[in-house]
Amino acid sequence: MPSPHQPVPFTADDYRARMTRAAEAAEAAGLAGVLVAPGPDLVHLTGYQPVSTERLTLLVLKAGQDPVLVVPTLEAPDAEHAVGAPALTLRDWTDGKDPYEVTAPLLDTGGRYGISDNAWAMHLLGLQQILPTTSYTSLTEALPMLRAVKDAHELDRLAAAGAAADATYGEILKVRFSGRRETDVAADLAALLKRFGHSQVDFTVVGSGPNGANPHHEAGDRTIERGDMVVLDFGGLKHGYGSDTSRTVHVGEPTAEEQRVHDIVREAQKAGCDAVRPGAACQDIDRAARAVITEFGYGERFIHRTGHGIGVTTHEPPYMIEGEELPLVPGMCFSVEPGIYLPGRFGVRIEDIVTVTEDGGRRLNTTPRELAIVE
Amino acid sequence: MPSPHQPVPFTADDYRARMTRAAEAAEAAGLAGVLVAPGPDLVHLTGYQPVSTERLTLLVLKAGQDPVLVVPTLEAPDAEHAVGAPALTLRDWTDGKDPYEVTAPLLDTGGRYGISDNAWAMHLLGLQQILPTTSYTSLTEALPMLRAVKDAHELDRLAAAGAAADATYGEILKVRFSGRRETDVAADLAALLKRFGHSQVDFTVVGSGPNGANPHHEAGDRTIERGDMVVLDFGGLKHGYGSDTSRTVHVGEPTAEEQRVHDIVREAQKAGCDAVRPGAACQDIDRAARAVITEFGYGERFIHRTGHGIGVTTHEPPYMIEGEELPLVPGMCFSVEPGIYLPGRFGVRIEDIVTVTEDGGRRLNTTPRELAIVE
Repeated sequence: MPSPHQPVPFTADDYRARMTRAAEAAEAAGLAGVLVAPGPDLVHLTGYQPVSTERLTLLVLKAGQDPVLVVPTLEAPDAEHAVGAPALTLRDWTDGKDPYEVTAPLLDTGGRYGISDNAWAMHLLGLQQILPTTSYTSLTEALPMLRAVKDAHELDRLAAAGAAADATYGEILKVRFSGRRETDVAADLAALLKRFGHSQVDFTVVGSGPNGANPHHEAGDRTIERGDMVVLDFGGLKHGYGSDTSRTVHVGEPTAEEQRVHDIVREAQKAGCDAVRPGAACQDIDRAARAVITEFGYGERFIHRTGHGIGVTTHEPPYMIEGEELPLVPGMCFSVEPGIYLPGRFGVRIEDIVTVTEDGGRRLNTTPRELAIVE
Repeated sequence: MPSPHQPVPFTADDYRARMTRAAEAAEAAGLAGVLVAPGPDLVHLTGYQPVSTERLTLLVLKAGQDPVLVVPTLEAPDAEHAVGAPALTLRDWTDGKDPYEVTAPLLDTGGRYGISDNAWAMHLLGLQQILPTTSYTSLTEALPMLRAVKDAHELDRLAAAGAAADATYGEILKVRFSGRRETDVAADLAALLKRFGHSQVDFTVVGSGPNGANPHHEAGDRTIERGDMVVLDFGGLKHGYGSDTSRTVHVGEPTAEEQRVHDIVREAQKAGCDAVRPGAACQDIDRAARAVITEFGYGERFIHRTGHGIGVTTHEPPYMIEGEELPLVPGMCFSVEPGIYLPGRFGVRIEDIVTVTEDGGRRLNTTPRELAIVE
């Protein structure tokens, strides 16, 4: 039995199931297949994580066919060691050969393929040149939900990453804020995320006082003072899956207005989470959270979407935003993170990752959402 | 005056000159212009180093026109702080707008553009959709020499990176090899590169005994033994520019055969360096080094090209390989790294970075090339 600190390893069967689902989803969307480049799509579908280079590596998926991974001969030994390798066939090509000639027979002439957003332009141009009647569309456009529904083992990892972020929040409440720079607290957050098992830190937002009113602020030289509201928003990857949580704290006692704005955001965040259930549209989550903030007169101060998906990256589809009508499905994971931003003064944001269950939603972040007082 | 440890800062004029040269080279190659994506091309041309994302950032260069950088509004403040920013015009676009509509008026309908190899496929598809009669070709194909010729300040940085790699070699000769694993020595190399100012370590090859006979081996669990030849090949980035050097050492006294093979590689490497001069073809460098190895009967054991360019990355055009007829130009920088690989037994490789001068070549690595004895 793996130790409680180690996730259940993914198996070749896990990857086979993901590749089959992706190929079937492509067929249902009218595509001839899916072309997967190194990056998050390939990691999710095969467990193989090479660096993107000028040498073509490309996974070709098509419903009813075995997956084929085109790979440089030099890198074939690494590819063979990927956990998902038993679920696919390698087709290697040596330096000096044309990798697009190797790939072309795997594709349908005249077919339309979804291709990873981050595939290199030079590789797309190579395919377009050799197969001029085949057409391509980005996976974000054609299959935005490719990685959106997580299986049970993926959910375990997202929960573990969330727990590590929660442990980080528990510890950061004990550090000194006043008199230190935002970047100092950000460094504390990064060290804590690592201590609790993150292999990669993606962001450590510390927005104190007026800096908190800019949702794109990360952390700066400003010295945090007594009386500041401080937005904390941090996350990264643990065992290959993402964390992302926000809490807003106060240095010393808050004013009545600060407390009130925080209460409104907390209620909005709860409303967003409560709206999560299978069949609800993504935009319903945004509307539920936004309605609360609007009701209290701060609608103009909630200046971003309510949430984004999370998985092998910390920001991916689905997006909880007005106009996104995609229905929620059990296994989806995304943030619910409304905020209020008062320019020149302060900001408040509260964020949890939520997963869609059979009959509702379940938060993967569970630290208290009340306004915490720090020193 | 900057301290001797700090490079001369690049100025907006440096970047302006590079962008002008690139636009003129594109025109000379029959292109309507150059489309530059985040990555090494953009760093070289503007000093701006954003992360590649689904949000379009694209530099548009055209001879006789001011450079324009299309950039997400959120990232415009960062772009404005790039050293090259005064030499270009920003054209920002906000979330919800179509970035390809913003870019289209900057391009010639029906023109042919070179685009960075690593531009995202989704962005190329976006441009192709909005401008169906405009065509595209990868910069590696259309303008392989875009970043190949370095200016004086770039040469200073490459020389400083080379000196740091040389200092690393000087120190690694003092560590214990026998009884330690390859990965231990590789970790020493990485730590030394960092100590001597590298911000990024790209590779630390330690190929002992039979592992040295595989030029693609990096470093493994093998314990180094007395009597081993050990190929060392290491480099990374210092102040944004690359280092890459190889030396082969011996644990204890070498056999006559080991010494002889090393002598041949050393002579071949010298022949390659001696062949460097303006107007020589890239393939001439390969031929000069290969001729020596072939003459001594090891031609079949020299199983890779002789060299590759170096700059803001550690591997880039030009390539010193048979068939590459591009003429050398003063300011080009590349490796000269012949080797002999005896399967199951050992390998030898010796590598320096060489820059083309007005009348020959100059090595940027100057540590002794004789076979060093280590413990």
